[in-house]
Amino acid sequence: MGGDARTIRLLLAYDGTGFRGWAAQRDPSIRTIEGELRGHLLRVLGDVSKIAVAGRTDAGVHARGQVASFTTAAPARMTPARIQAAVNGGMAPEVVVREAAQAPPGFDARFSATARAYRYVIDLAEVADPFTARFVWHRPGALALAPMRAAARLLIGERDFTSFCRHPGGDRSTVRDLQRLTVARDGSTLVIGARANAFLHQMVRSLVGTLVAVGEGRIDPGAMPAILAARDRAAAWHLAPAGGLTLERVTYGRRS
Amino acid sequence: MGGDARTIRLLLAYDGTGFRGWAAQRDPSIRTIEGELRGHLLRVLGDVSKIAVAGRTDAGVHARGQVASFTTAAPARMTPARIQAAVNGGMAPEVVVREAAQAPPGFDARFSATARAYRYVIDLAEVADPFTARFVWHRPGALALAPMRAAARLLIGERDFTSFCRHPGGDRSTVRDLQRLTVARDGSTLVIGARANAFLHQMVRSLVGTLVAVGEGRIDPGAMPAILAARDRAAAWHLAPAGGLTLERVTYGRRS
Repeated sequence: MGGDARTIRLLLAYDGTGFRGWAAQRDPSIRTIEGELRGHLLRVLGDVSKIAVAGRTDAGVHARGQVASFTTAAPARMTPARIQAAVNGGMAPEVVVREAAQAPPGFDARFSATARAYRYVIDLAEVADPFTARFVWHRPGALALAPMRAAARLLIGERDFTSFCRHPGGDRSTVRDLQRLTVARDGSTLVIGARANAFLHQMVRSLVGTLVAVGEGRIDPGAMPAILAARDRAAAWHLAPAGGLTLERVTYGRRS
Repeated sequence: MGGDARTIRLLLAYDGTGFRGWAAQRDPSIRTIEGELRGHLLRVLGDVSKIAVAGRTDAGVHARGQVASFTTAAPARMTPARIQAAVNGGMAPEVVVREAAQAPPGFDARFSATARAYRYVIDLAEVADPFTARFVWHRPGALALAPMRAAARLLIGERDFTSFCRHPGGDRSTVRDLQRLTVARDGSTLVIGARANAFLHQMVRSLVGTLVAVGEGRIDPGAMPAILAARDRAAAWHLAPAGGLTLERVTYGRRS
């Protein structure tokens, strides 16, 4: 990359239903958001660095406020607005660039991020709703909110979340600062909000699966400390399905 | 059908994106809502009459409150609740039976209906929204509401809507009572509501296309009477795309 390389920051939204997640795979026939985005960027810009991303969403997970960044040596006439229009022309409405901007040198969508906020939506109604089905977990029947909230309070904080992680991965730290874990009811919909400095692999879906088991009376909220202390994936409950999960917002710099 | 045949009424919702409309086609490889629903009903009940429907929605059109009815000689232990559960087990969440009930003898979802209400949603935002994309027409840029409302007022009433119909079809009446045609803005979304005793083929999409042309300044609202009087499809504007249209509600008996 020459001295005139620019860093570009993209704010993305996507319906993840048709994708095997963010991360590009070796097999180009596997649809990934990174893979298709990279293809469109290369077509427009000719030259594109590896794409950094704030949240490597799994297969079927959606985003409203994903952030990605890359550097390019493409001429300055390829403005962020033109990049945005070109990508949207190829990918919308399944994947859209909501905003594109030039970022300060050294900006990295992953390493510069200070917090991520996810939202998980559960539809408790007896009959599924075709209009929201792609973005919710349809799980008919009531859940007890008070114990779910009690359990959530016991999970908040800077803790070792190994029990809520699929692949802790060698000697990397499994400590994360879970700043918020809320359970809100809106009609027949239950919304679980989670915010942390960063999340481990499948951590939100594991937290949601465990909270739902609490809401069903299968686990006592008081069991949370023991589940955390076990540092064992088997101690937590099943994963909630991917379709209910959406990356809502990424924070850079100081907490807002 | 024997003397013990029952009439069953279904309230349906569906995402029409993947279907070539309501009406079953001769080619069974063409996905239609009627075709798949009939397959599931036959599997469960063995015997099912022709299915009557309140609104024969076109390819890509959705429904939140579609009503269908049929008669069956299947044993009474196949209750409406069991029929609902069986159909939902096979078709949800793309198509769902919201309610199933036994109807009075002679009830016919089409001929007993006294009014239909449709809703058309236009997304005016610059960038499409992956979360609503299947159910809206993404048409970036502002529209002038006041002339659209003035045009709508001139279209309301019991009139010959031939100019807003694709296939008037021989000597059948093309007079319909358009009881309501509203234009409401909600953020960057424009919602057009239409209610009539019944609609001609593609009438709502044709009305919407014409109202949008008015909102763009291409047609003067005052031209509506002349468009109606022309009794010619070419006098109206282009059809709005199917994806923005949803059958919301069907009324039986007196207007509520």
